[in-house]
Parts: sequence; structure tokens; C-alpha cells
Amino acid sequence: MKKLSEQEIESQLTKLSGWEYVDGAIETSFEFKDFKDAFSVMTRIAFECEAQGHHPDWSNVYNSLHIRLNTHDAEGITEKDFKLAQSIEEIIESE
Amino acid sequence: MKKLSEQEIESQLTKLSGWEYVDGAIETSFEFKDFKDAFSVMTRIAFECEAQGHHPDWSNVYNSLHIRLNTHDAEGITEKDFKLAQSIEEIIESE
Repeated sequence: MKKLSEQEIESQLTKLSGWEYVDGAIETSFEFKDFKDAFSVMTRIAFECEAQGHHPDWSNVYNSLHIRLNTHDAEGITEKDFKLAQSIEEIIESE
Repeated sequence: MKKLSEQEIESQLTKLSGWEYVDGAIETSFEFKDFKDAFSVMTRIAFECEAQGHHPDWSNVYNSLHIRLNTHDAEGITEKDFKLAQSIEEIIESE
């Protein structure tokens, strides 16, 4: 999996909403009604991660969820990160 | 819910294994076989949190889980944190 250039990353980011390139990862945050809603969405995302064989660095406090994606093996951002980010957006939008 | 003193916190910590008092929270980390195992345990913990009406500040990267507990309303550590920590230990031990 090829590491994307900064230019490629910035170009891909324009296709997503609310993701930023920060400290070597693309990241975003979401807020939900409460913990149950946040964890329900996390569960749907978890299944998608497992299906894609790609996993986030993510944290949750009550109703908030912070997600960072990068590709350790490539030491940077790859298409895998943008594929998962897109899936995460679709899950959130379907809520 | 009464905020515990440092002495009370240290005393309660001796009843747990692998928890530390760091930066105003009690915290611990666990490693599992893989992401599926880590997220399965998180799901069991999530149900327990919801039942206790108390929620962690937690993060996951692949097979690792980091958990921090404190009580925002009390601006410190309370019995609620130790009750949830105990439940988390029981869930982990039952794996």
C-alpha cells in the first residue's frame, strides 16, 4: 500500500467532511446524544474496520468520539485510510 | 458523591491490580489477542458503564485498550470510579 503525498492527502480530504490531517494521521470528532448512541456507532464502525482489516486509533468520552487513521506499515496515510474514513462517514450519515 | 482523598485513593488502589492514579484519574491498560477481542471486551464494559451510569475516558488501538476513570461532577475520584474499576477487572478476569 503506497504512502500518499501531502498533496494527495489534501486532495482526498476535500472529498470528506470534517476530517483534518494532523500529526501524521487524518482525524475527526463526532458528538452524539449520549454514551449509548456513541457506543452504538462505534460498534458499527468496529465491524466495518474488521471487514476492511484496518483499525483506528480512537477514543471515547461519554457522547464524544475522536478518530485518527493512518497506516503503520506505510508510516503514513494510504488509500486504506480514506476508504475507512469514507465508510465511517457513511455510517454516521445513516444515523 | 464524595471526592476521595489521595490517601483513600491509594488505599483503594491496593484492592485492584494494575491500576494507577495519574493526573487526576485512575487508569489502566490491557492488551488482547486482536481488535475483535479488544472490542468484544469494550462492549461488555460499555453495558456495565451504562448500568452504573458512569463512563470512562478510554481509547483503543488495535488490540490495546487504555482506560481512565474519574468523576467530573466531584472533580476527582469517587467510589463510583472504584466500583466501575472493580467491574472492569471482573469482566477482564472472566475472559
